[in-house]
Amino acid sequence: MDSSTRLSTSLDSAYCGRRVLVTGGLGFIGSNLARRLLDLGAEVTLVDSFVPDSGANRFNLSGVESDLSVIIADVCDREQMHDLVVGRDYLFHLAGQTSHVGSMADPFGDLAANATASLTLLELCRTVNPAIRILYAGTRQVYGRSHYLPVDERHPLEPVDYNGVSKLAGELYHLVCHHVYGLRTTSLRLPNVYGPRMRVKDARQTFIGWWVRQVLAGQEIQVYGDGTQVRGFNYVDDVVQAFLLTAANRLAEGQIYNLGSVEPMPLLELARLLIEINGSGSYKLVPFPEERQKIDIGSYIGDYNRIQAQLGWQPSVPLRQGLAQTLAFYRQFHQYYW
Amino acid sequence: MDSSTRLSTSLDSAYCGRRVLVTGGLGFIGSNLARRLLDLGAEVTLVDSFVPDSGANRFNLSGVESDLSVIIADVCDREQMHDLVVGRDYLFHLAGQTSHVGSMADPFGDLAANATASLTLLELCRTVNPAIRILYAGTRQVYGRSHYLPVDERHPLEPVDYNGVSKLAGELYHLVCHHVYGLRTTSLRLPNVYGPRMRVKDARQTFIGWWVRQVLAGQEIQVYGDGTQVRGFNYVDDVVQAFLLTAANRLAEGQIYNLGSVEPMPLLELARLLIEINGSGSYKLVPFPEERQKIDIGSYIGDYNRIQAQLGWQPSVPLRQGLAQTLAFYRQFHQYYW
Repeated sequence: MDSSTRLSTSLDSAYCGRRVLVTGGLGFIGSNLARRLLDLGAEVTLVDSFVPDSGANRFNLSGVESDLSVIIADVCDREQMHDLVVGRDYLFHLAGQTSHVGSMADPFGDLAANATASLTLLELCRTVNPAIRILYAGTRQVYGRSHYLPVDERHPLEPVDYNGVSKLAGELYHLVCHHVYGLRTTSLRLPNVYGPRMRVKDARQTFIGWWVRQVLAGQEIQVYGDGTQVRGFNYVDDVVQAFLLTAANRLAEGQIYNLGSVEPMPLLELARLLIEINGSGSYKLVPFPEERQKIDIGSYIGDYNRIQAQLGWQPSVPLRQGLAQTLAFYRQFHQYYW
Repeated sequence: MDSSTRLSTSLDSAYCGRRVLVTGGLGFIGSNLARRLLDLGAEVTLVDSFVPDSGANRFNLSGVESDLSVIIADVCDREQMHDLVVGRDYLFHLAGQTSHVGSMADPFGDLAANATASLTLLELCRTVNPAIRILYAGTRQVYGRSHYLPVDERHPLEPVDYNGVSKLAGELYHLVCHHVYGLRTTSLRLPNVYGPRMRVKDARQTFIGWWVRQVLAGQEIQVYGDGTQVRGFNYVDDVVQAFLLTAANRLAEGQIYNLGSVEPMPLLELARLLIEINGSGSYKLVPFPEERQKIDIGSYIGDYNRIQAQLGWQPSVPLRQGLAQTLAFYRQFHQYYW
């Protein structure tokens, strides 16, 4: 039995027949996670507020709609969430406001979606289901501008936009509940994640989605600044694997882990790679829009040694392969995402 | 001219005739700050929500009621706050929920009072009064349990209760607004503060207030645990001086500073000192109540080198003198505080 078979067997036993709640389940990572959970034999319920400008998309569940339950609800709604939390084995809390620019435009909505929503879930869990395993989708945005690269979990927390603040508050609530109430919480601090089912309507949530759309639509990619900002990118399957591995491991309770990539690269190089894989396309360097310049974090590379050492996770999908799969997905299904 | 005269002259010029808004102005630090601002010739407006269980007390303004304006309003009320923010030179944002135990009992109220309220003020300031100087009352609670002593501003941020999370979010909003919008914000991370006009009804906000009341009422002081937890204590006049010095110094904009004490001591020793100064009293060691044990931070000593080096602040009131003045105040005015 090779190591990937062993891993998959152990995930089977962790999830087969278990009752799993995924918030933000119609979104990018949530829907990919839900599909994988179904493959593992889990009983899956998704919650999503399905608000405009979020990543929620009904097509993200295409082909599996009848294999799971979808509840449209706001996570801040205590009464609705009460019934959904009761009796679950796992909660993957992926719902949230993730747009940096969006947080500056709607700070109170951002705070509610990230901090109030987390608090609502945690207070419910401690009251009605304290044994539930809880994973939180954190973000590298909590670090702000890097003091050093790669950034490990001990890096100072200096968010540069409202979103970094609200996501950090949501994360810290999870940790407080572990220490005070013994809740079984873990946060994964995600870097740039890309892949099928990401939002590509605009650059609100991820610029990679926007670039993929532009290159497929034959439009010029705009690279902000001089394009030398380095970033690491995780393919969504690797991120889903990290959530599953982490939730299945008791060692991870009360912990925070960075994810990260083996192939960080400057954005200019990413644009060229995307165009090369697509077989056509163009880019140009343009000055940062002011609203983005002020909250840009510059270069970021996540140090993922901790999760690799403690839980055995590492990224496995090469960037070139991930981008090719992503382009193929949107080439086929663009009418559901444009 | 000695250094204290120079300092006072420069504060006169910073505040004389200036329009100052103090949130939480009926509370402990707010009312002491307001009195000092009046002495300096400032035009002072106080906002306070005057909610039960807060530190708000009408008697805190005894003798100066007619020298300033008091508005009863919730800082989260954007419309009311709008008119109060317009035209001010300084905003001292001291309103907030500061009880650790209280935050665990009312997490949503705590989040609103600390994070939403800060966001409300900051969004108003950037829109209608971007030149206003803003000071935020932060807390050492953002550090959680100390990894080392004394704790400087680079210590990891690992709050152990909801209150530490919401106060941190409030603080980070202030810093984000400095970096993104150029707002002139500073946060002071306060340690245990004591002195006249603190809340002594119970131990919700500060155990020192409760101890002062117990020793004056001839009741036994209860020291939790073994009493070896070390803390530093700042007399309120020193804290007020820190706010005034900081707000008057442009170097401080966008910065965070710890305050701290020259005389940190174990709580057991503090209890003995209080009894000695009072001339009578008793104490006993009792086990931690469970609700407090879980969120107790153990020993904390604030490293105040940064504010001392950059702004010239240092604590000046010896603990013995401060405690004597505090006891004298409550001996005289206990009927307004019990």
